Amino acid sequence: MPVLDPREFIRAKRDRRVHSAADLREFIAAYLRREIPDYQVSAWLMAAYLNGLDEAETEALTLALLHSGRTFDWKDLGRPSADKHSTGGVGDKISLILAPLVAACGVLVPMVSGRGLGHTGGTLDKLESIPGFRTFLEPDAMRAQLDRIGVVMVGQGPDLAPADGLIYALRDVTSTVEREYFIVPSIVSKKVAEGAGALVYDVKCGSGAFMKTRADAVHLARRLISVTRSLGRRAAARVTDMNQPLGVAVGNALEVQETIAVLRGGGPADVRSLTLELAALMLSLSGAASVAEAPKRVEQALDSGAAWERFVELVRAQGGDPASVERTGGMPAAPVVVPVTAARAGVLETVDSFALGELVVGIGGGRRAKEDKVDPRVGLMVRRRIGDRVAAGDVLAELHLAKDDAGAVERARACFRIGEGPAAAPELVIERVD
Amino acid sequence: MPVLDPREFIRAKRDRRVHSAADLREFIAAYLRREIPDYQVSAWLMAAYLNGLDEAETEALTLALLHSGRTFDWKDLGRPSADKHSTGGVGDKISLILAPLVAACGVLVPMVSGRGLGHTGGTLDKLESIPGFRTFLEPDAMRAQLDRIGVVMVGQGPDLAPADGLIYALRDVTSTVEREYFIVPSIVSKKVAEGAGALVYDVKCGSGAFMKTRADAVHLARRLISVTRSLGRRAAARVTDMNQPLGVAVGNALEVQETIAVLRGGGPADVRSLTLELAALMLSLSGAASVAEAPKRVEQALDSGAAWERFVELVRAQGGDPASVERTGGMPAAPVVVPVTAARAGVLETVDSFALGELVVGIGGGRRAKEDKVDPRVGLMVRRRIGDRVAAGDVLAELHLAKDDAGAVERARACFRIGEGPAAAPELVIERVD
Repeated sequence: MPVLDPREFIRAKRDRRVHSAADLREFIAAYLRREIPDYQVSAWLMAAYLNGLDEAETEALTLALLHSGRTFDWKDLGRPSADKHSTGGVGDKISLILAPLVAACGVLVPMVSGRGLGHTGGTLDKLESIPGFRTFLEPDAMRAQLDRIGVVMVGQGPDLAPADGLIYALRDVTSTVEREYFIVPSIVSKKVAEGAGALVYDVKCGSGAFMKTRADAVHLARRLISVTRSLGRRAAARVTDMNQPLGVAVGNALEVQETIAVLRGGGPADVRSLTLELAALMLSLSGAASVAEAPKRVEQALDSGAAWERFVELVRAQGGDPASVERTGGMPAAPVVVPVTAARAGVLETVDSFALGELVVGIGGGRRAKEDKVDPRVGLMVRRRIGDRVAAGDVLAELHLAKDDAGAVERARACFRIGEGPAAAPELVIERVD
Repeated sequence: MPVLDPREFIRAKRDRRVHSAADLREFIAAYLRREIPDYQVSAWLMAAYLNGLDEAETEALTLALLHSGRTFDWKDLGRPSADKHSTGGVGDKISLILAPLVAACGVLVPMVSGRGLGHTGGTLDKLESIPGFRTFLEPDAMRAQLDRIGVVMVGQGPDLAPADGLIYALRDVTSTVEREYFIVPSIVSKKVAEGAGALVYDVKCGSGAFMKTRADAVHLARRLISVTRSLGRRAAARVTDMNQPLGVAVGNALEVQETIAVLRGGGPADVRSLTLELAALMLSLSGAASVAEAPKRVEQALDSGAAWERFVELVRAQGGDPASVERTGGMPAAPVVVPVTAARAGVLETVDSFALGELVVGIGGGRRAKEDKVDPRVGLMVRRRIGDRVAAGDVLAELHLAKDDAGAVERARACFRIGEGPAAAPELVIERVD
C-alpha cells in the first residue's frame, strides 16, 4: 500500500484542489515503482487536463519527473555547458549545426534528443541517416567524449526521467497531450537531467508547430524559462516562425546535407541566421562570452571551418563514417526525384507545413507508431518561400521518393496556396524572451 | 483496430461533445472484448465525470451495459418477482433482512448485489463474512434455488452486464463514482438483467450517502424510475436518511449479527422499520398484495419467524454454515474492541458518516483497490444517535479492530460532533417517490 491513496489524489484534482509537491512526488514515484496502475494515472491526467495545474504544481511535477531517474553533472569538466531544445517543427535541423558550433566555441553541449513522432522530424533519426552513427553512449563514454571534443548527441537512455517516458506514452493514447502544464515538465525534466547549466528554448509557432498562435508560443516560452530557473539553471527562449519549413530540406539525409552546407559556409540564409542567434545565446547564457562578444565568436567559429571540423569529429567519435559527410554523394539518396510544380501563377501565400510534415511521414521519412522504421533517403526540397511570386509550371519543391508516387506529388502541391497576393514573408524570430 | 478510435471518443467527451448511442455501444463492446484497455476507459470516465452525460446518453449507456451480457427471465416460475436496490450507505444491511422476508411472503427475490464501493459496504462482502457462504451460483442453480426457497443472493456473474462489472470496479479506484449518469446505468442495467418484474430503489441521502442533498437524491430517484420504466419494468423509490449510520453495526460480520437480531424480532428500530416499509412496497409493486394489505403481510412474516427461517434456509442453500448464524458467537469476531468516548458533554449534533465509512475501509473492512482483501471482523458499533444528550466519557461507539490502533479511535471520535444542541433526530423516510 503506497503512503499516498491514489483515489484521494485523483479526487483532489477532480475537485479542483491543489496538490502539494510532496503528494505529486509520491504519486509519480509510486507510479514508477508500479504500485499505481496506468488506469489511475490516466484518470488523474484527464482530471488535470480539464481542471489544470498551477505554477507551483507544474514546478513540482517537473521535479518529480526529474527525480524519477539519474541526473548528469559535468561541473568537474571545468567548462561552461549549454543545450538547446526545440518544441518541434518541419525541416528543423538546427541542432545538428548548433551542437558542434557551440562546442567549437568552448562550451560543452551534452545534447539528449528524441525521435520524430507525429509530423515533426527527430534529431536522432537525422543523425542515424549518417552511415554507422550511434546515438546511444554509456554514461562513461559520454563523459569521455564530452571532455575530449565538447559535444555528444545521444538519445534518452532508460534511466533519464523514466517517469516522463511512461506518462508521455500514456498521454498519447488518452487524448491528454495538449496542455502547457504537461508539456513544460516533460521538456524541462529531461533537459535539466542531462546536466547543462544553460538552456535555450526554440519555441516554434505557426502551421507546422504544436503552438499555432504567437500568444500561446510566448506563454509556453515564459513557462519553460521560469520552471527551468526554479531548478537552478539559466534559461532563455526564442519564439520562431514555423509557418513554412525551416530552410530547404525536409527529410533525414536531405537535412544532414543541408547541415553540411551550412557548416561549410553556405546553405539557406534562415538556417544559418537562426543557428547563429541560438548559438550566441548559448554562449552568453552559459557565461562563455558577453552578450556583445557572443555573436562575433559564433560567426567566426562557423566561417573559419572550426564548427565543420568539430562536426566531423563528432561523426567519427560516435561511429559514423566521416567520408559520408565529407564527400559529395556520401549520404544515402532516394532513387526517384520528381518536381512539384505550380498549377497557376501568383504569389505563394501560405504553406501547410503540418501537411508537408505528414507527407514526409507518409512517404516513409517518419513514423506513425514508435515501432515504424524510417527511410533516411526520402523527403522534399522546398524551393519557394511565402511571399515569392511564381509562374505556372515553376518548381515549388522536389520530392525525393523511394518509388514513383503520383499521389504524393498531388498532396505536396496542395500544401502550397498560390493567390493574388501580396503576402509578407514571415519574420523568422517572432519574439525574444530572456 | 476497433471501428471506433478510442482516442477520438475520449477527446469528444473531453471537449464536451455528445456521444451517439452507436458510439457508446461500440465503446462499451470494444472494452468488453478487451480491445480498449482500462487506462483509456478511465480517462473517458474522468472526462464524462467532469463534462457530463445527458439523458439520452444515460439511457444509451444503460442499454449498452445491459446488452453486454445475458438477461434472466423468471416468468415461467409463475410467481411475482421483485427486488430492491440501495444506492449505498453506511451500516446498510437492509438487503440481508429484506430478501428472505419478501421471499417468505411469496414473492421471488432474484437479488444480485455488489461489493463495497468507496466508503460504503457491499452486500456480498457482508454475506461472505458468514463462513462458507458462496455468492456465486450458476444460472441453473439460481433457477432451482429461486423455485425452491424463493430467494437467491448472489454476486454479479461474469455474464450479467459484464461491462458494468468492469466499469464499476474501475470507477471505484479512479474516483469517478458519484455521478447520477454513471450510477443510474450501473444500477438499472444490472437490476433489469436479473429479471425482477418490480424494482424498489432505496436512495440514501445525507452525510454518509453519495447524494448529500434531498434535491439530488429525489432527482436520482426519479431518474432511476424513469430509466427503469423505459425498459419495461415497474419501479418506485424511497429517499431515506443517511446522516448517521443505519442501525448500530458498521462492518461486515457485525452487520450480519444485527441482521440476525432483526430477523429474530429485535434489533435497532430504524433497521426494522425501513425493512418493513421497503418489503411492503415490493409486495404491492409486484402485485402480490394490495397497498393496504402489504404492510400487515410483511410484519407478520417478520414477527412469526418465517423470515428468519427463510434466512437460515438461504444460508444453508448457498453453502453457509447455519450454526454460524444460529449460535451466539458463531460469526468471526475482531480480537480488539475499544470504546470511543465523548470528550465533552452536550448534544450529539452531527455524525460524519462518510468519514466513519472511510474509517472502516482504513481499518481493513473495505477496499481501496479492487485486489484488496476485506477483513470481515472489523468495524464499529454506533451507540449514540443524532439528538442524544451525552456526558463526557460516555461511549459513543466501539471500534472492532484487527490490532490496536490509537489513531483510528481518534479519527472515530472526530466523526461525532457534540454541541450545545438542540439537534433534531432526522426523519428516516424523507420522500416517497412512486
